[in-house]
Amino acid sequence: MSLLDFFVRANDMGMDHAKRRHALQTSLRASKLDSLLVTHAANWHYLTGFTGESGALVVSPDAATLITDGRFTVQAKEETRGVRVQLQQGGLYSSVGEFLRRNRMKRVGFDAGQLTVAQKKTLQKATGGKCRWIEAPGMTEGLRTRKDAAELTTMRKAAILVGEVFDSVLKLVRPGVRENELCAELEYQMRKRGATGPSFPTIVAGGARSALPHARPTARKLGKNELVVLDLGVILAHYCSDMTRTVHVGRAPRRIREWYRAVLDAQEAAVAAAKAGTTCGAVDGAAREVLKKHGLEKYFVHSTGHGLGLEVHEDPRIARGQAVRLEAGNVITIEPGVYVEGVGGIRIEDDVAIHVGRNEVLTRVSRDLIEL
Amino acid sequence: MSLLDFFVRANDMGMDHAKRRHALQTSLRASKLDSLLVTHAANWHYLTGFTGESGALVVSPDAATLITDGRFTVQAKEETRGVRVQLQQGGLYSSVGEFLRRNRMKRVGFDAGQLTVAQKKTLQKATGGKCRWIEAPGMTEGLRTRKDAAELTTMRKAAILVGEVFDSVLKLVRPGVRENELCAELEYQMRKRGATGPSFPTIVAGGARSALPHARPTARKLGKNELVVLDLGVILAHYCSDMTRTVHVGRAPRRIREWYRAVLDAQEAAVAAAKAGTTCGAVDGAAREVLKKHGLEKYFVHSTGHGLGLEVHEDPRIARGQAVRLEAGNVITIEPGVYVEGVGGIRIEDDVAIHVGRNEVLTRVSRDLIEL
Repeated sequence: MSLLDFFVRANDMGMDHAKRRHALQTSLRASKLDSLLVTHAANWHYLTGFTGESGALVVSPDAATLITDGRFTVQAKEETRGVRVQLQQGGLYSSVGEFLRRNRMKRVGFDAGQLTVAQKKTLQKATGGKCRWIEAPGMTEGLRTRKDAAELTTMRKAAILVGEVFDSVLKLVRPGVRENELCAELEYQMRKRGATGPSFPTIVAGGARSALPHARPTARKLGKNELVVLDLGVILAHYCSDMTRTVHVGRAPRRIREWYRAVLDAQEAAVAAAKAGTTCGAVDGAAREVLKKHGLEKYFVHSTGHGLGLEVHEDPRIARGQAVRLEAGNVITIEPGVYVEGVGGIRIEDDVAIHVGRNEVLTRVSRDLIEL
Repeated sequence: MSLLDFFVRANDMGMDHAKRRHALQTSLRASKLDSLLVTHAANWHYLTGFTGESGALVVSPDAATLITDGRFTVQAKEETRGVRVQLQQGGLYSSVGEFLRRNRMKRVGFDAGQLTVAQKKTLQKATGGKCRWIEAPGMTEGLRTRKDAAELTTMRKAAILVGEVFDSVLKLVRPGVRENELCAELEYQMRKRGATGPSFPTIVAGGARSALPHARPTARKLGKNELVVLDLGVILAHYCSDMTRTVHVGRAPRRIREWYRAVLDAQEAAVAAAKAGTTCGAVDGAAREVLKKHGLEKYFVHSTGHGLGLEVHEDPRIARGQAVRLEAGNVITIEPGVYVEGVGGIRIEDDVAIHVGRNEVLTRVSRDLIEL
């Protein structure tokens, strides 16, 4: 089956939405919530399979209702199973409030980070003040951190695909090519090979600009002896990958080789530390410790990684002091780097799945320093 | 100057941020607000030129302060003039609240649609309950509807560029090519020609799928005799364009030609109606009236257009019943369509700038039915 066919059949890939809702419903009962209002698209997609652009999902202990507008009701019925689809009357949030009121939901959970002040006001008006609003952040996000077999199958393909895209464009990296030309080629290859698109704005940063972790590609031409950071990811059948490699145009001077070796050692140490039961803070610490030995710790200005799935940044965060422990099913990035102002930056990033007793690096591209 | 050079120099293109802030400050005084909290990126960008990914802008009648984190403070100082840049301490919204409290801001305007419940709670805690929060929606959006000369110059280029992209890919539209391959080519050409990227997810929808106004490209191959809707836009130097053409693979049957003619007449009628002083509802009505004469009104399932600028959907809305009057400086899309389930859809869209006494179609691509 080609990647393109795979993409088309993605909705049949055995994602068990009912099982996910069941797990959420168990938590709802434990929290004595009459329902949870799910307003974040990645969450309703995870729980139902619905891929429309507008809607809200109300999950109660024994049912799930998706409220959406006329553009998406047919699609919602086709994409979901065991979910009531209801056409909104008027605005989305007044319809949701009306639904909650009519179904006498008294204790309604919501995520205050995923609802605007205006939406909340509309809900409160439509429910006539009969609901008690309970902050219940991250309930779906918590489930999403433990990927099931179907999700892992898709994420493996997304990680392999981003590597193929990188390899296909590597030959174009040379003095005189513009950062934004390389970016165009990378995103073109993503789509040609079956991805929906990039999972975040692709980074191609050469020379001193590589020292900016969040650099956007510019029309600047690559020079003859400089570092180039390429950070890219694809969305394949709704799941994200995320990979960084740093290459050197021309033969790398000794100092750059030493920095590269240090970042690679740090990355490998953090990958080795990424096991079920280990705290996320300890994984971050493993990378930081190696860079400290090389006197480079102060140049490592961000955290070591983040969860990956339907969104490119999810829980868990692999950062200093994070006490959360890794679990089987987590998929995370490991991406230490050093950034020296005026000189350049080096970052190496892979995607890692955590299994019982072992881990699996999903991205399949050589980590050796490439000199072009 | 090539488009690539243009992109690089975009920050020097004479955008008069101080003048824009001055206009906003006049409104603040009239509303007796001590400050307006600007939390939407397109708004702070419009008012200051800052292009970073995180921050908040506090505009008071005599000053503007941008609060952002360490990743963006250097960039913020480089990109702005006459704006105080303040490094946030801890979280963004607790820093903003602390700033408001320290500067004794009593009446603070905010947009309830652009602040989450969690952000508001953090602000209230940090201000110690000393602020009165006044809903002040759309203050910056209102200014943004009247484009100045520098904005119009950029938007002309963005509109011409999207037409060039369309023309360059037209030759690839033929039986057997996949929708997502055409999408990949279109977005590739955008970047190759100097755009930052697409201004929204590109639509390529063939056959019966063209009857879905919001279709996403699939791996489906184009057939031998069918309609194909191509809806695309670019971001160039931060400004959006948005254009739709519908082509027919093979010779179009009589019925399709008639529908096409009706949509084209409707589009031309709405473009002709789009003048300063006319209500947006009347512009929408001009398109709808033509389709009604052809018995096609029931197949026109969306509104006629929308404002365009730093965002691809802005004010004003060109929709049924909109009493807002067009003004010189508005840039809007005009995009009527007919969508017949099981058969296909036709949409024709251009970008139109409103001037005193006339208008200007910014997109420069033939509207004749193209048979390929």
